Amino acid sequence: MKVLIYGSGQLAQMMYLAAVPLGIQVSAVDVGNHTVVDPISKRSLELSIEDAIEQADVLSVEFEHVPEDLLEQAQSSGKLLPNSEAILAGADRVREKAVLSKLAIANSEHRIITQVEQLDEAVETLGDKLIIKASRDGYDGYGQWRLAHIEQLDSLKNTLSQLDLQNVPLIAEKMVPFERELSLVGVRGLQGDIQFYPLAENLHHQGQLHVSVAPAPDITENLNQQAQLAFKKLVEEYDYVGVLAVEFFQVGDSLLVNEIAPRVHNSGHWTQQGTDTSQFENHIRAITGLPLGNTKAKGKSAMINIIGCDDYSTDLLSIKNCHLHLYGKTVRPKRKMGHINLTGKTYSELAEVMTTLAKFLPIQAFPKLLDEADKLAAID
Amino acid sequence: MKVLIYGSGQLAQMMYLAAVPLGIQVSAVDVGNHTVVDPISKRSLELSIEDAIEQADVLSVEFEHVPEDLLEQAQSSGKLLPNSEAILAGADRVREKAVLSKLAIANSEHRIITQVEQLDEAVETLGDKLIIKASRDGYDGYGQWRLAHIEQLDSLKNTLSQLDLQNVPLIAEKMVPFERELSLVGVRGLQGDIQFYPLAENLHHQGQLHVSVAPAPDITENLNQQAQLAFKKLVEEYDYVGVLAVEFFQVGDSLLVNEIAPRVHNSGHWTQQGTDTSQFENHIRAITGLPLGNTKAKGKSAMINIIGCDDYSTDLLSIKNCHLHLYGKTVRPKRKMGHINLTGKTYSELAEVMTTLAKFLPIQAFPKLLDEADKLAAID
Repeated sequence: MKVLIYGSGQLAQMMYLAAVPLGIQVSAVDVGNHTVVDPISKRSLELSIEDAIEQADVLSVEFEHVPEDLLEQAQSSGKLLPNSEAILAGADRVREKAVLSKLAIANSEHRIITQVEQLDEAVETLGDKLIIKASRDGYDGYGQWRLAHIEQLDSLKNTLSQLDLQNVPLIAEKMVPFERELSLVGVRGLQGDIQFYPLAENLHHQGQLHVSVAPAPDITENLNQQAQLAFKKLVEEYDYVGVLAVEFFQVGDSLLVNEIAPRVHNSGHWTQQGTDTSQFENHIRAITGLPLGNTKAKGKSAMINIIGCDDYSTDLLSIKNCHLHLYGKTVRPKRKMGHINLTGKTYSELAEVMTTLAKFLPIQAFPKLLDEADKLAAID
Repeated sequence: MKVLIYGSGQLAQMMYLAAVPLGIQVSAVDVGNHTVVDPISKRSLELSIEDAIEQADVLSVEFEHVPEDLLEQAQSSGKLLPNSEAILAGADRVREKAVLSKLAIANSEHRIITQVEQLDEAVETLGDKLIIKASRDGYDGYGQWRLAHIEQLDSLKNTLSQLDLQNVPLIAEKMVPFERELSLVGVRGLQGDIQFYPLAENLHHQGQLHVSVAPAPDITENLNQQAQLAFKKLVEEYDYVGVLAVEFFQVGDSLLVNEIAPRVHNSGHWTQQGTDTSQFENHIRAITGLPLGNTKAKGKSAMINIIGCDDYSTDLLSIKNCHLHLYGKTVRPKRKMGHINLTGKTYSELAEVMTTLAKFLPIQAFPKLLDEADKLAAID
């Protein structure tokens, strides 16, 4: 069986690695230069996208920002899973907000901004603490602005007036004083069967995910049910097949959807060591019609992103139950270079491993690691 | 870092998959046609062996029967791990027996046969129950003959007289009434540090491994120590680096070495799901100088080889903690097509999973599965 993935980065790489043992060949479309490549070596397979689509049994994506023409071509083949409607809901915050409203899934209060003047009305209704996001092509903190108090409004309007808001509207969201960010990664099979990984707690820094801990501590049945209900509504709306990630803000006992990602997700990387069947294998299983695998957490896991640095010591592999996942990239500021998965029987065992890990790392590049270890050490 | 593996079959494939997350690129030499290939797709990398050796940081092997000229070339690069002496000890039973004698490691009584007439003396000293093995290029039961009683001797001599015994001597071994076959897979790092996986029990059928169970049931500390001592003597003799597998016959409370394999081994495939760090990852870690990973068994595991058949149902993946590892081959009689890894908390849980698995398989191709499940069910 053959799978063609749009996007040839680390997510395609990890899907490839999970697919080989299942006898499934994964190729990737480099959407930058429209070539079909081996997802590991990035060598061209000397194959047109048309031929690759023809040969593939299933098409899928590693990211939602697939250029429109490619996405349309993929959808029209009849082989794209999840389908383009679902992918676009992840790619376009206007569509995302529309579907959340339609399905009555709680999310932050917001206004859609197609002219900077509409910001005045947004401030009147939502207050002067706003986070403003480009509706498309923003990721990892890019394409985001903050209004912290009313004095900044004129300057912000000035900045934003230089954008083409008719073409790419903004979403102005009320800044929510949330306790933490959680994400639910789940998978829906071809027959509509659903498996959930446990909720992960995600720690961001400057707009990028740095650490995920799973299962997230202090999850009530109530929180779980809110998350799973939102997930179920979304996958049923789109007749979704594959892995879907839903990011939430926890505000008291409530979850507000922050965003949805129609694909395997950075906050699910812990599943490689932390569960029997990783999100990558389960995505491949789902889209190829294989039975879904066990998503239960084996113990407590942490995933530590390696961002913008390569001056760690590989002696970190001497730590028991510590695994390195590198993406084969040259270093650049803010670039995700790889991640480290850690597991422990308890949160305090996990905290110990995290503290040991810190000794092998340039700690300024891992600003969330030790604080989180301290927090986890206090749990059990 | 770059690793070049001699041999481009499933073992090279699984080393490749384990190496990618460590940021290590694995290429393979197809020793049949002297090309350098991608170990998964088998696509030629359009690179001469000389250039591939030049570019590689380390060379290693997936099998011991590397043609002599290639092995010499590899050794002379100074990058081959384990070294060619160790590889030849696995490739040549005359060398293997010599090193076992030298190191006083218990093994079956035997005679080296370079002329068929020497079989008479062998029968006189060892008795008329013999297993006769070609000293080189035999595997999976090929190149083996049995003498079950004295009346067969003349006919056997007739058969063997057609071989070039001067060039490829035979080993005539006394047939040992052993209780079972066990194997020890271990790994030695560049600094001489050693990690052992627990002993596995191996079930053969017609000369091929069908099922491994690990940790093997009923292992005494005494058996463990015998196995580990034999392993230590061998790796120290050769200043061995990488994974080494030693196969044993258990006879009462004693272990006799059956054979040694200077590489990752079929009886270690269970480590992919059954331990934190698979034999494939640990081999790559060892030869590239990385710290060795945890080899402890997580629970009880079984590895089921898929041999000469492809008419199983992939619905077997619906079984909890059941993993498929396919090698991407077209089916042929006796060909190893892939394996299935199963895990359970206890032997009886494992037995249950094995029994469930049988429902998805053409059972005549898995002659050892259900009997072994019955045996394991009785343990705990």
